[in-house]
Amino acid sequence: MMKQTKVQLLLTGNELLNGDIVDSNSAMIARELAETGIEIKRKVTVSDDLSLLAAEISHMSTMADVLIINGGLGPTTDDFTAQALAQAMNVPLAQHEQAYRHLVAWCEQRGTRLNPANLKQALLPAGCDIIANRIGSAVGFNVNHNNCEIYCTPGVPTELKVMLDEQIVPAFTAKTTDKEKTKITKFQIFGLGESKLQQLIHDKLPDWPESVELGFRAGEPLLELKLTTRSRAAETEKAQCITRLKTLLGQHMVAEINDIPKSMAHHVLDKLIEKGQTLTTAESCTGGLIASLLTQIPGSSRGFEAGFVTYSNEMKSQMLAVNPQILSNHGAVSRKTVLAMAKGALDKSGADYAIAVSGVAGPGGGSKEKPVGTVWLAWGNRTNLQCHCFLIPGTRLAFQRYVAAIALDLIRRSLNECDEQANYLIERSFK
Amino acid sequence: MMKQTKVQLLLTGNELLNGDIVDSNSAMIARELAETGIEIKRKVTVSDDLSLLAAEISHMSTMADVLIINGGLGPTTDDFTAQALAQAMNVPLAQHEQAYRHLVAWCEQRGTRLNPANLKQALLPAGCDIIANRIGSAVGFNVNHNNCEIYCTPGVPTELKVMLDEQIVPAFTAKTTDKEKTKITKFQIFGLGESKLQQLIHDKLPDWPESVELGFRAGEPLLELKLTTRSRAAETEKAQCITRLKTLLGQHMVAEINDIPKSMAHHVLDKLIEKGQTLTTAESCTGGLIASLLTQIPGSSRGFEAGFVTYSNEMKSQMLAVNPQILSNHGAVSRKTVLAMAKGALDKSGADYAIAVSGVAGPGGGSKEKPVGTVWLAWGNRTNLQCHCFLIPGTRLAFQRYVAAIALDLIRRSLNECDEQANYLIERSFK
Repeated sequence: MMKQTKVQLLLTGNELLNGDIVDSNSAMIARELAETGIEIKRKVTVSDDLSLLAAEISHMSTMADVLIINGGLGPTTDDFTAQALAQAMNVPLAQHEQAYRHLVAWCEQRGTRLNPANLKQALLPAGCDIIANRIGSAVGFNVNHNNCEIYCTPGVPTELKVMLDEQIVPAFTAKTTDKEKTKITKFQIFGLGESKLQQLIHDKLPDWPESVELGFRAGEPLLELKLTTRSRAAETEKAQCITRLKTLLGQHMVAEINDIPKSMAHHVLDKLIEKGQTLTTAESCTGGLIASLLTQIPGSSRGFEAGFVTYSNEMKSQMLAVNPQILSNHGAVSRKTVLAMAKGALDKSGADYAIAVSGVAGPGGGSKEKPVGTVWLAWGNRTNLQCHCFLIPGTRLAFQRYVAAIALDLIRRSLNECDEQANYLIERSFK
Repeated sequence: MMKQTKVQLLLTGNELLNGDIVDSNSAMIARELAETGIEIKRKVTVSDDLSLLAAEISHMSTMADVLIINGGLGPTTDDFTAQALAQAMNVPLAQHEQAYRHLVAWCEQRGTRLNPANLKQALLPAGCDIIANRIGSAVGFNVNHNNCEIYCTPGVPTELKVMLDEQIVPAFTAKTTDKEKTKITKFQIFGLGESKLQQLIHDKLPDWPESVELGFRAGEPLLELKLTTRSRAAETEKAQCITRLKTLLGQHMVAEINDIPKSMAHHVLDKLIEKGQTLTTAESCTGGLIASLLTQIPGSSRGFEAGFVTYSNEMKSQMLAVNPQILSNHGAVSRKTVLAMAKGALDKSGADYAIAVSGVAGPGGGSKEKPVGTVWLAWGNRTNLQCHCFLIPGTRLAFQRYVAAIALDLIRRSLNECDEQANYLIERSFK
């Protein structure tokens, strides 16, 4: 076979072949490399088999300029990457001093002792360089063979992510020549779906220049809009496009992405801290998810102090002083209940802003009047508490995540003192 | 490369390589074939590129006894499978009568007329056999080349599924002899890492039979242990292995996996419902995550009614009646505080069991006395409230997830009235 592609991917793991899991790592790698303008045209997945893996490395290294190997770095007997690479290169395995020190430090930090199985993770092909792993035991490593740059990376997604972000992508970016003037600007969009957004741009900005390539990536829940230019001249055009897009999309454009995309909760928290305000949550059907999303962000205590998970009616009354009469007359999923929950949460916590959520997450519990997916939200501050009923069909988890995202977006819009109406207030309205 | 594997998979599609979608088709194929005892050891994914695809077919057909090709059967210009296969086999494309009739019938059924693009789907490598597609326009096809049986299948998952179920798997089953009786048993493990578990089995069950293959899959947070046998005789040995494993691992073995693996929260909830008990949560550093994990499970209201997210000291006193004196004397991350939080949560909610968590999630807020990763947990019921201090280093999110998992596991152990000590109570202890 000819040398047809520059970057190839080799994945190892029985679990990738026997149907136990779907491979999301290679999608992650592809997306991260796409940022640097690199496309992957071929990938091979093999089982945890030493000779198969070694043969594949030999073969692929003759086809590709760069080979990224993922998986097989663990401490167990079915992890073969280092051994296979050594075999393919015809070099011995040797204890790598830096890898060894990493393992010792890693064990020390966790208060455990280095066991023989872990020690295997320091045995690497002679002559390779280490790729640091800030959060796991398995270091990555990098070596040139057959004129092919080989990167070995861990299969644990969180470790792979950190290694890509901090080590591999920057190394690739440094190598990309200045001739390729690919510039990418990305924005986070919420409340407009991919096709809706595309239609909108098509209809309202019909003279969109060809030199500014439009790309979309559906996200959960934030969609990514990508503008790519490949020349200096196009950059000026892009600046104009961005100005027009901002006017067109208003608050549906949540933020420009610099570096790592922030979550919706992160944007809300930033704004709360900037304004010196605090938020509280009163959650029924989202069951703590909104509070959890907020408290995942470092420094969240500056904008969030208290959350109430009131799953039963009794707890809504007890924890948030919702009048039992309201619950018996209108039900838990009602305008009056969410408003009372929000007021209760503001009173009990002393926070400036509140989100209250009550709905039917399913799969059971729906009725003709209030089918699965019905949800009442209340949001705002003491002087301006609003509420709305939505219908969000889907699985329980998808429902919870989307409701949490809408709730946070509504608070973001309140904090931005924006009057314009979110698209989901029209499209997802119920009753 | 040698003929090392029997069945190989070739997938085509740019979307499989650029990170736009994750490939779930190959997992589907693998699971369906596993039922017939067939394992896939290698798969290759290439972009929609005619020459790349043709070269790959040529190469793989010399390696495998069976090659399943997925994707590239559509009507558009980037669908190349038939053309590539014809090229690899050095035969012409010809209109296949049966495929043509299928297309005509398919269009008739939908009240449309056959267009030139669709007609392309009847142009197949001369000499191939049709695999019927009951629900879509693209027929599959099957041909022998280089002594390799090649099956071309559609990329649309629903069409692939029907074709596998109705045509391909039955054909394979007919060919498979009764000798290959692959049986897999899987367990969820918590509190023992992959290397620790392997070491333990190695040390304590040294006479482990070779016919019972051991496999591990690191999960977050539950690890998967897999026992595979390939003969009737080995099944008896496996039964003995399982009995010995259960004794060895005790409550570290959370459950056998049947069908879809359950989360730790799901196991806790099942047990709560089984015993007619309820749980409440008082969360500081996990900020609602534990409540959220519980309420992700359908029917969670039967075991969970109330959760308290008390992020600040003031809220710990206000919502959970923690004595402010305790907070000022011992700090929020202390034995006395988590015990008071747990008691407060039990009193306020009327639940039977409580989890209380207070720790330093980081990245800021650590001190020499209480470094980032320090966490106090309290758990149990009114008559038996226990507490413990752990050190869980790592990123904020990894810390929160692992703490949530330990907290839920401790409740699971309480509900199971188990006296044995969890490994993490030793390995992750602090102070």
